[in-house]
This record gives sequence, C-alpha cells and structure tokens, in this order.
Amino acid sequence: MVILGIDPGSITLGYGLIEKKGNKLTHLENGAVYMKNEPLSVKLEMIYNQLSDVITEYKPEVMSIENIFYAKNIQSTIKLAHARSIPILLAKQRGLIIYQFTPLEVKKSVTGYGRADKSQMQNMVKVLLKLPEIADPDASDALALAMTYAHLPNFQRDKYRV
Amino acid sequence: MVILGIDPGSITLGYGLIEKKGNKLTHLENGAVYMKNEPLSVKLEMIYNQLSDVITEYKPEVMSIENIFYAKNIQSTIKLAHARSIPILLAKQRGLIIYQFTPLEVKKSVTGYGRADKSQMQNMVKVLLKLPEIADPDASDALALAMTYAHLPNFQRDKYRV
Repeated sequence: MVILGIDPGSITLGYGLIEKKGNKLTHLENGAVYMKNEPLSVKLEMIYNQLSDVITEYKPEVMSIENIFYAKNIQSTIKLAHARSIPILLAKQRGLIIYQFTPLEVKKSVTGYGRADKSQMQNMVKVLLKLPEIADPDASDALALAMTYAHLPNFQRDKYRV
Repeated sequence: MVILGIDPGSITLGYGLIEKKGNKLTHLENGAVYMKNEPLSVKLEMIYNQLSDVITEYKPEVMSIENIFYAKNIQSTIKLAHARSIPILLAKQRGLIIYQFTPLEVKKSVTGYGRADKSQMQNMVKVLLKLPEIADPDASDALALAMTYAHLPNFQRDKYRV
C-alpha cells in the first residue's frame, strides 16, 4: 500500500510517499510545492497540479494530512486552511482515503516522544526510512505523517478519518 | 459579461449569476450548495462539482467572492476557509478573473449604506435584479457580490483582485 503524506502550508507544501508491505516501510519520493509570492489562486492551482501528477505517478491509496489548529495568527491560519483544502479535494476526487493527525500525534508516533524537536524528528525520519540524507523540513514532516498512518493499528483508524 | 458571485460557507455556499450589458444588470440564476452534516472531503467535492456545472452552463468571465476575516470562532473560520478555497481553485482552472470584497463593501455597493441589515440587503437585491421573490439568504448574498463587481469602476478593479 502506498501512503501519501501531506504537510500543508501556503508558502511551502511538503509531500512524501512511502510504501507499506507488512511492517516494512519503504521511502518512494518526497518533495514540496514552492509558492512564495504567488497570488492565492495560483498557489491553489500549483498545489492541485503538482499533487495530481504525484498521485498519477505513485497511485497512493491513502492520504495522511496534518490536522489544523490555530497557527501563528488568524491570517496565517486562514491561508493555511485555504492551502490544506486542495489536497483534501484532490484526494477525494481520486478515491484516496483521507486521515488527519495532529503534530503531537505525529511526534509520538515517529519518535515515541511528544516533545521531540524539529531536528530530532527529521533525523528519525531519515533513520527509519533509510534516507541518504535529511529531507527538506516540509517533505520530512510529510513523510512523518505518512509513517504515522502506517504505524496505526487497524482498529484505531476510523477516529482519524477526515 | 457574465459574473458569478459566491457567498462562501461550509454548511451552505450560495452562488448567483448576473449578466452585465453596459449598465444593465440581468439576473440569470441563483442557488446554493447544501452540505450540512457531510464530511469535509465530501463538502469540498460537492462545491467543486456543482460550481463546475454552473460555470459550464453560464460561462462567467469573472468571479466575485466574499473576503474572509475572522468568523464566529476559530473552528468556523477554518471550515469557512477550506470551503472558500474550492471556488477560487476552480475559477483559476476555468480561466475566470477573481475578485473579492468585504461584507461592508458589498453593503455599501448594493444599498449605499454600510449598516444595512440582512433583510434590507435581500430586498435591495430583489428590487435591483427584478427577482419575482426574495432569494435564499446565501444566494442573495452571492448575487450582491456579483453586483458589487458590476458596479465597480474599471480603474478600481485591480485592488480587489485575488
């Protein structure tokens, strides 16, 4: 099963793909949509088009996306919510099952520790997925989201469905 | 020129279409996407599909959508931003030029008065567009947004582009 992780953002949106076979996780791809200084409508179309290509290429069955709470301020939160909406629409259109996790849930799942810092997280993702080097921060977070779904026992999945 | 007005919402999303020929405005259509109790991904796809059909049928060149500020609370604001993102994506994909206005700008444009209440607004929309009866509130607001764009002098348009 291929899992698409999404770290939503309105400036950079990270994505990462892993394959789960039994308990074995294999890294397939990671990257980001870079949208700095673009108008909102252009950003949304960039997210849609680039993730659409990724879905066509890797055919994930599941999307794991970060839940949204209050960001830095209300304007950032509103921008983030606009950006986050597009992968959810696209996943629905393409038949992926969608799950969401909070940053805390991701940290606990990947490092076993809710207060891991950014660099600890990135290093854990590198080690667990045998990456040659640490991935870009947004792509690393996206891979962590995909791993969080992969680690989830079947019976717990329903409560994370979007 | 056909103008599509959008009153974004995550429970009901209103839309309205008017045609502008010179200074004459003609009502073409209004309606709403009703999404109560649907999961988020289903809501987003409903908005996309229903507005896609509307765009195919009426071929608007312009979309006029309500700007977003802080709604009732942060959770409502986040839901609203998710819903609002979809018409913006779709309009971009279909080549519409996108404008946004605040509720205050809409009120001033339609009634000449910034503190008009809901029913005054709805009645003005009915009178100005010669509707047989008052439209549903969300559809009426969407028509008011379309009219706000239609009333805008050319030289002022750029500042409202999304």
